[in-house]
Amino acid sequence: MPRPENRANDQLRPVTITRQWLDHAEGSVLVEFGKTRVLCAASVTQGVPRWRKGSGLGWVSAEYAMLPRATHTRGDRESVKGKLGGRTHEISRLIGRSLRAVIDYKALGENTILLDCDVLQADGGTRTAAITGAYVALADAVEWLRAKGALAGEPLTGSVAAVSVGILDGEPRLDLEYVEDVAAETDMNVVCTGDGRFVEVQGTAEGEPFDRKLLDGLLDLAVKGCADLTRIQLEALAVPPVNR
Amino acid sequence: MPRPENRANDQLRPVTITRQWLDHAEGSVLVEFGKTRVLCAASVTQGVPRWRKGSGLGWVSAEYAMLPRATHTRGDRESVKGKLGGRTHEISRLIGRSLRAVIDYKALGENTILLDCDVLQADGGTRTAAITGAYVALADAVEWLRAKGALAGEPLTGSVAAVSVGILDGEPRLDLEYVEDVAAETDMNVVCTGDGRFVEVQGTAEGEPFDRKLLDGLLDLAVKGCADLTRIQLEALAVPPVNR
Amino acid sequence: MPRPENRANDQLRPVTITRQWLDHAEGSVLVEFGKTRVLCAASVTQGVPRWRKGSGLGWVSAEYAMLPRATHTRGDRESVKGKLGGRTHEISRLIGRSLRAVIDYKALGENTILLDCDVLQADGGTRTAAITGAYVALADAVEWLRAKGALAGEPLTGSVAAVSVGILDGEPRLDLEYVEDVAAETDMNVVCTGDGRFVEVQGTAEGEPFDRKLLDGLLDLAVKGCADLTRIQLEALAVPPVNR
Amino acid sequence: MPRPENRANDQLRPVTITRQWLDHAEGSVLVEFGKTRVLCAASVTQGVPRWRKGSGLGWVSAEYAMLPRATHTRGDRESVKGKLGGRTHEISRLIGRSLRAVIDYKALGENTILLDCDVLQADGGTRTAAITGAYVALADAVEWLRAKGALAGEPLTGSVAAVSVGILDGEPRLDLEYVEDVAAETDMNVVCTGDGRFVEVQGTAEGEPFDRKLLDGLLDLAVKGCADLTRIQLEALAVPPVNR
Amino acid sequence: MPRPENRANDQLRPVTITRQWLDHAEGSVLVEFGKTRVLCAASVTQGVPRWRKGSGLGWVSAEYAMLPRATHTRGDRESVKGKLGGRTHEISRLIGRSLRAVIDYKALGENTILLDCDVLQADGGTRTAAITGAYVALADAVEWLRAKGALAGEPLTGSVAAVSVGILDGEPRLDLEYVEDVAAETDMNVVCTGDGRFVEVQGTAEGEPFDRKLLDGLLDLAVKGCADLTRIQLEALAVPPVNR
Amino acid sequence: MPRPENRANDQLRPVTITRQWLDHAEGSVLVEFGKTRVLCAASVTQGVPRWRKGSGLGWVSAEYAMLPRATHTRGDRESVKGKLGGRTHEISRLIGRSLRAVIDYKALGENTILLDCDVLQADGGTRTAAITGAYVALADAVEWLRAKGALAGEPLTGSVAAVSVGILDGEPRLDLEYVEDVAAETDMNVVCTGDGRFVEVQGTAEGEPFDRKLLDGLLDLAVKGCADLTRIQLEALAVPPVNR
Repeated sequence: MPRPENRANDQLRPVTITRQWLDHAEGSVLVEFGKTRVLCAASVTQGVPRWRKGSGLGWVSAEYAMLPRATHTRGDRESVKGKLGGRTHEISRLIGRSLRAVIDYKALGENTILLDCDVLQADGGTRTAAITGAYVALADAVEWLRAKGALAGEPLTGSVAAVSVGILDGEPRLDLEYVEDVAAETDMNVVCTGDGRFVEVQGTAEGEPFDRKLLDGLLDLAVKGCADLTRIQLEALAVPPVNR
Repeated sequence: MPRPENRANDQLRPVTITRQWLDHAEGSVLVEFGKTRVLCAASVTQGVPRWRKGSGLGWVSAEYAMLPRATHTRGDRESVKGKLGGRTHEISRLIGRSLRAVIDYKALGENTILLDCDVLQADGGTRTAAITGAYVALADAVEWLRAKGALAGEPLTGSVAAVSVGILDGEPRLDLEYVEDVAAETDMNVVCTGDGRFVEVQGTAEGEPFDRKLLDGLLDLAVKGCADLTRIQLEALAVPPVNR
Repeated sequence: MPRPENRANDQLRPVTITRQWLDHAEGSVLVEFGKTRVLCAASVTQGVPRWRKGSGLGWVSAEYAMLPRATHTRGDRESVKGKLGGRTHEISRLIGRSLRAVIDYKALGENTILLDCDVLQADGGTRTAAITGAYVALADAVEWLRAKGALAGEPLTGSVAAVSVGILDGEPRLDLEYVEDVAAETDMNVVCTGDGRFVEVQGTAEGEPFDRKLLDGLLDLAVKGCADLTRIQLEALAVPPVNR
Repeated sequence: MPRPENRANDQLRPVTITRQWLDHAEGSVLVEFGKTRVLCAASVTQGVPRWRKGSGLGWVSAEYAMLPRATHTRGDRESVKGKLGGRTHEISRLIGRSLRAVIDYKALGENTILLDCDVLQADGGTRTAAITGAYVALADAVEWLRAKGALAGEPLTGSVAAVSVGILDGEPRLDLEYVEDVAAETDMNVVCTGDGRFVEVQGTAEGEPFDRKLLDGLLDLAVKGCADLTRIQLEALAVPPVNR
Repeated sequence: MPRPENRANDQLRPVTITRQWLDHAEGSVLVEFGKTRVLCAASVTQGVPRWRKGSGLGWVSAEYAMLPRATHTRGDRESVKGKLGGRTHEISRLIGRSLRAVIDYKALGENTILLDCDVLQADGGTRTAAITGAYVALADAVEWLRAKGALAGEPLTGSVAAVSVGILDGEPRLDLEYVEDVAAETDMNVVCTGDGRFVEVQGTAEGEPFDRKLLDGLLDLAVKGCADLTRIQLEALAVPPVNR
Repeated sequence: MPRPENRANDQLRPVTITRQWLDHAEGSVLVEFGKTRVLCAASVTQGVPRWRKGSGLGWVSAEYAMLPRATHTRGDRESVKGKLGGRTHEISRLIGRSLRAVIDYKALGENTILLDCDVLQADGGTRTAAITGAYVALADAVEWLRAKGALAGEPLTGSVAAVSVGILDGEPRLDLEYVEDVAAETDMNVVCTGDGRFVEVQGTAEGEPFDRKLLDGLLDLAVKGCADLTRIQLEALAVPPVNR
């Protein structure tokens, strides 16, 4: 199975990061990995959850969701079903952990930043696009706090980006789109910091269990992909934020 | 209180209708009434709900929701709270009824079209923008069915559009944005067909009860606004749909 | 289709308002519009919801529900299903808004009055009967507060009553009962104050969209019906409340 | 603590059974034990729950609930809370078991009778009033089925009634009202058939554990009370049902 | 139907009480009535529920649940279904009431002891095993509090044990196992204090209503069974608790 | 921080696998990793979930839960809260995927095996103990199906075991217990097949992001630990199952 649109195995899909896509949010990004489109909104609130009050430390968390018609066939709304599915929970937790890996809670002060990652259209890699876009929205929200004089230092200790990799026909491929994801024998999501260290490594054998050599190949490819995404994030953030 | 950006009392905000905003949905529209932005996706499924099976008649319904950070301050997700709020229910029902008013179920055949209206950004008038955009997405979904040869006739008996009107400082204004909505003494949502008849009239005294003369003025203004929106819908639909 | 029991088109069904139907509630009314029977109980509590604390203002709200066998065929309990349906939400909100239209929050002081409107038997017009009866229960609860010396003035700025109107065979009819409601082409619920102004106007085309002339006819009829109901409310309230 | 209104220890409160209180239900009773008022509605449906299909046997069950303002201070609606409380579940199950004790499923045929027992006002003994009234509604529903020719024999093998008994100041009392119930050291609900046998015996030490002699005294009193209630049920049923 | 394993009608199954089965809980017991196996864990927390704060009184409550594969065929998890069944509620409440019958709240001080009774394997009599085992876990938790110097006196005013009795082939049998329970005409659960008084008596006619003579026979048998269980509890508690 | 009880960094806690701990389940294992104790019950049902019917393929899934007092301080029951937490969902899905990695669906035929993994006591590593124990229960359930003649071949293509590894004070440690888990900088759960290939690799930086060298060290250690567990599983399965 060849890659759609003749992509090379180690090539990302076209990635677009549009900042300030929303007017009200303290940070907001529409991130696109090919046809995958995720809206990331950062909401700042003064104060922290109850269990953290008085600690002088801030908090960052995330919620992930998909619009019902993000997918090829419509899915039922979780709000109508009355409960969150396991997948939603799992990805929300993953995004939150990934972002917290580059946060200095003390410098953030007793402020909370909540990242809402809503998938408008899904074509594989929604969780990795969400993490990559959410970091940029988070950075803008941090600037917003800085402009208010509400920070006690630099809360961002680095950047994070995420990418999926997988084995198809025995070969590692970077940034799987939907048709590849479905066909992959092994699927791995990797979250890296901007300096190339690992925050999360989640690999799953969808078919055959995989050996150490394949695992090593996947990790190499993922590190490369995250480095590419880090560059794209930096470019997006290089433009000064429009005044609001 | 003057209108923001010197709008005339009988003037709509800038309205934009972008068709085929999504790749998977059978019809999709990003509709904007000023800063209010609603994504309307039409999903076609063969067959109808159980209570309608074997009737030869089709079905159209709608679900409305708001992204948590569509608003000035973030709202909790209804999926996390585990239940739909009354406002969500009420607006979903209103959109469904409005669209069904221009549907010939027999011509639709035993097909279901579900309209998802997700508010990406809210600045007043989200329900009227949703109805106005959803009609266009519905029309595209009907064309999609027609192209498949799945229709038993023309299911659209007309068009629908909706607009809000309200009284501020004793005067009727068209298409209230958020700051006006909050300040309005009376608030009315009106759904009209393209030929100027009423589908829904919902008026509420927020402060003082209103008299017949004010009501008449509001209705006149709403009819005018719906006519303007009908023209914008027709222009948007005049362009032939891009092949997919 | 002639009206059941030879009612004139502008004639209400027999309306009965029985005050103090319950022993514990601060105000209670069994209201009957023909076979429609709604029990309205007003519960007074000192204090207001959290978001209103310290404002010096009172609060009034309502909850509407139907007993499972109020209807011709039994409906499932919402408590058993674990969630409120959209219709229940919508009507509860309507009743609350209608009553609040005649409340001076300042005069009420930091007290809350909650109106429970439970439909014991349904034969069309349950929401309009509920509003009409709830007003009387509210008035009794206000008297109860006055007797306690807990008011800061006169909280009632007027009275409210509500009635349904509809088009059958092209003609407007007042106060539809169930068989008429099902057959109506257009259905409208109107809430008026005792001095004939509008609090809510909710009209829906069930079949054909309706034109301005029909709308005007319906509004005329509704205003007349609300005036009749206002008279009946006043008569019911003329009798001094029995001491408890 | 003397009994309110000088009741004798072995005396019931005034008991009223009003049949056909509702127009739609196949059987309906407003039962009053003093100020306790329960509306019992019997709903007949053809067919039985899935697990019983094809067995040739019928089914009888019950649901108990309380209106929010049945009590001295308003209780939250279970439909709003989104779940049934333990007490509601427990009493619903008790009523169902009690009625099924006098049902011949075979004679009932594959029909289901569901008894809704809604407490309109509570003053102690709501569950025993519910059972006593529900039996009469059930008997009317059985007659309704008989008139339709839908029975395979006589489904009622007897009658059931229920009463509460308790110990106050060391002495057994019959049919406790609310103030007594709260003060009772031991509280027992007993369900008997018309021929004086036991269907349910549920005794609870609220304070001190009780000995065999007290238990025997309570049982004697309960048997007497059930016999009185059986007589009242028979009198209520002696009048032929009004034709509908 | 003879008793399995030739048990005499008035004979308990082999009963085992293993204390300190868990390492973290302040009291814990694995109780076995034949193949029925219930894990009872007592959790102590400082403070009491909100409605009891400042009263100087303690609180004891219980939660009962069954592992999905405790039974012959697997049952769905209540956590997955999202609500507690009526039976679970009912038994949790019964266990709580039974234990509270031997608690002096004042001596307990403002401490709460919560008993979790989780059925690992079910073979009839799970609620009576739970009560019998929970008492022992409660006693250990009380000792734990005493060792902390957190008590204001002796909170245990006695002991409680519970047993089921039933009628099979017209004869009373003690401590029914599953196959007997299913076949029993009448089923009764009795909770007694160590000095032979009653805390709860819950008898249900599963088939034929039962007369006073049978009831008396069942009560006699239950009192005997509870006395046997009291002896077994005392033996289990005679061993001093292992230091932790 | 030295390891409790002088464990070597590459040493497992004492691991015990007790088969047939339950009488009703088709396979059941009490697995202990030190003080962590998980009850794994395999339930066989004929047939498969609806979406798989008629495919000729079997299905295996898992549900994970924790008793409320498995932990040092009691957690609320998810059945009482009315929804599953994210962690529960996530682990249930992980166990299911891990077991399915060694299943030949065709050989299993249209049978479903559901593994319930209930944590009776938690001291770190509950998910890895659950996977390791569940495999053994699954193997017994497969034997049960084989004895029934219900298999179409050998459904087990291998074995699976799982272990946690983590970095403390910069050094990799195997099979973390609770106090170590809390202190670890990086935490990884690894699921391997008996032949040493990977099924799942889930690593998370709790504090500092980790580099490739540490990751490699953790993977080496995990592979070793899984090999040890595989040996213990084989020993446990070497004993022929007791006849039931």
